[in-house]
Amino acid sequence: MKIAGRPYRTIWPVGDARVDVIDQTKLPHEFATATLRSAGDVADAIRRMVVRGAPLIGAAAAYGIALAMREDAGDAALDRAHDALLATRPTAVNLRWALARMRDRLRNRAHAERTALAWAEAAAICDEDVETCRRIGEHGLAILRDAAEKKNGARLNVLTHCNAGWLACVDWGTALAPIYMAHDAGVPVHVWVDETRPRNQGASLTAFELGAHGVPHTIIADNAGGHYMQAGEVDLAIVGTDRVSANGDVANKIGTYLKALAAKDNAIPFHVALPSSTIDWSLQSGREIPIEERSADELLTMTGRVAGGGLATVEIAAPGSPAANPGFDVTPARLVTGFITERGVCEATADGLRHLFPKR
Amino acid sequence: MKIAGRPYRTIWPVGDARVDVIDQTKLPHEFATATLRSAGDVADAIRRMVVRGAPLIGAAAAYGIALAMREDAGDAALDRAHDALLATRPTAVNLRWALARMRDRLRNRAHAERTALAWAEAAAICDEDVETCRRIGEHGLAILRDAAEKKNGARLNVLTHCNAGWLACVDWGTALAPIYMAHDAGVPVHVWVDETRPRNQGASLTAFELGAHGVPHTIIADNAGGHYMQAGEVDLAIVGTDRVSANGDVANKIGTYLKALAAKDNAIPFHVALPSSTIDWSLQSGREIPIEERSADELLTMTGRVAGGGLATVEIAAPGSPAANPGFDVTPARLVTGFITERGVCEATADGLRHLFPKR
Repeated sequence: MKIAGRPYRTIWPVGDARVDVIDQTKLPHEFATATLRSAGDVADAIRRMVVRGAPLIGAAAAYGIALAMREDAGDAALDRAHDALLATRPTAVNLRWALARMRDRLRNRAHAERTALAWAEAAAICDEDVETCRRIGEHGLAILRDAAEKKNGARLNVLTHCNAGWLACVDWGTALAPIYMAHDAGVPVHVWVDETRPRNQGASLTAFELGAHGVPHTIIADNAGGHYMQAGEVDLAIVGTDRVSANGDVANKIGTYLKALAAKDNAIPFHVALPSSTIDWSLQSGREIPIEERSADELLTMTGRVAGGGLATVEIAAPGSPAANPGFDVTPARLVTGFITERGVCEATADGLRHLFPKR
Repeated sequence: MKIAGRPYRTIWPVGDARVDVIDQTKLPHEFATATLRSAGDVADAIRRMVVRGAPLIGAAAAYGIALAMREDAGDAALDRAHDALLATRPTAVNLRWALARMRDRLRNRAHAERTALAWAEAAAICDEDVETCRRIGEHGLAILRDAAEKKNGARLNVLTHCNAGWLACVDWGTALAPIYMAHDAGVPVHVWVDETRPRNQGASLTAFELGAHGVPHTIIADNAGGHYMQAGEVDLAIVGTDRVSANGDVANKIGTYLKALAAKDNAIPFHVALPSSTIDWSLQSGREIPIEERSADELLTMTGRVAGGGLATVEIAAPGSPAANPGFDVTPARLVTGFITERGVCEATADGLRHLFPKR
């Protein structure tokens, strides 16, 4: 997608010793890139959410393995890099998937080949992610077109939570890919953007990328989505996910569950868009998904632009009051209308997933 | 209740020409009072949320009438003050109730008597609110004691949204009154405090007043309550309300509906605490309650403390992205376990309310 008219991916190699990424901790206040030169740099970038979003985390981790191989292509170094990168974020399964793929690709190859192989494999993961997201967009576009037809030309209102746009992936996005395609195809789509506390990925990243592409959108408090659903102002909801269990339960950014409940209560379709690498076939239920507990500071402080330029961080809560900050929640499959994957759309059930991915 | 050991109400007359209030726009960063000398001052304080919370708004408006009478005790001035104060906040019904009570009390009295009568009536409204909240606390305490018994001495976890504590009233609070009484009685109560975007009344006011009284509490993002309910970490929820329709629908701070949905989905009791002046017997359904639309700036900027002291306001969202900010939502009566009123506890139904208030 484009920023100020120039096409970007969220991650790209520079030469053979360096990977550059968009520094998402600086958005929406500043557009900056960060340079990663080692597996440690990559792990740190994932942990600090310089890169975030389940698909992008997987792609970044793949390059982390490639950078590790440049320094030491031995088995022990490969395992060390794998484990260190895996430990950065416990909830997203794409991370585990990408790291396992990299290790499987390298393990039985000569050490001398490994760096080049790793570099190529990481690039392949990125290219495949772009193609996967494009397909998700096409399958989701059909849903948006159907919904738009029922509105007879009136604005089609889609609610999304957190950022599952191209900034969360390598390009296109998952939940936002159908929206970009609908907008480009002339469907009058408008997006309700959940602010997504405590890290505000909606107000900062989703609003930024929709604005950069020219898609009409409105930021709302996470609290407001239920009210707009009651008022008939939401036609459908689409979110991304960090991990889906085999029965169709969905781990996604904290607060997703509340929006799914409200959608159900108001008979509004609630779709989850995902690459199949997000499905954790080893888990029978979402109750088995580990939920990352993040720093209380994310809730107690806020960074933004001050008048006259520059950034400042302010403490916003009652001094001395503790806070808790679970990063994700699990939306039961019964609240999900359907999954939009690169293979097509299916029901959020074990049968629905098996039908789309019969080899599993 | 006390701040730094000193007992306070949220509003109090000083002499016969001035009313002082705690300036709630400064909390939790600074404890300051504001002086109101005219009905215009009061209207401005209500609009800017220097005073907020349905019961306190009613009490402040009553003093607004008293201040107006000092300047001009005529019928036209009475009507003007009434109408100007009523227009400040469209959702809270206590405001309308208090203003109607003041006008009824004054209308057929000699102009010369009106200032003294108004001053006394406003004081009576305040004293009655304190007594009403104390009774709400006692009735709610029984619910908390019952819930605590089932936990066999383990921490009793209560979730609340926004601020329905003593800062929202004259003293005690509505939703928090039972919690203060339980804490004082030795019940091991812990409060999950919803941050309550976009104005953060939970993180700033509820956390502040619970902390000042020594009640264990944890601030969480509005997004997190559903997750804690799923995890068995919430035993019950209690919130306040700005208006209840005759069928038991509840208008309260935006986001309340989402928590009520999650409580229902997890079979967790969800109570609403209110003085009976909050019931709008003229409305058959919550769909008739007007929802205040507030400034987008409340969502797009954040004020807090900077390192080294002082306050700063920062812009937190993507530049140029619009925002919408409905202040309230309506929770259908079917999601409410019960009402805790000064007369006792009743079901959230037309019959339940009529049984408790048979004269209506």
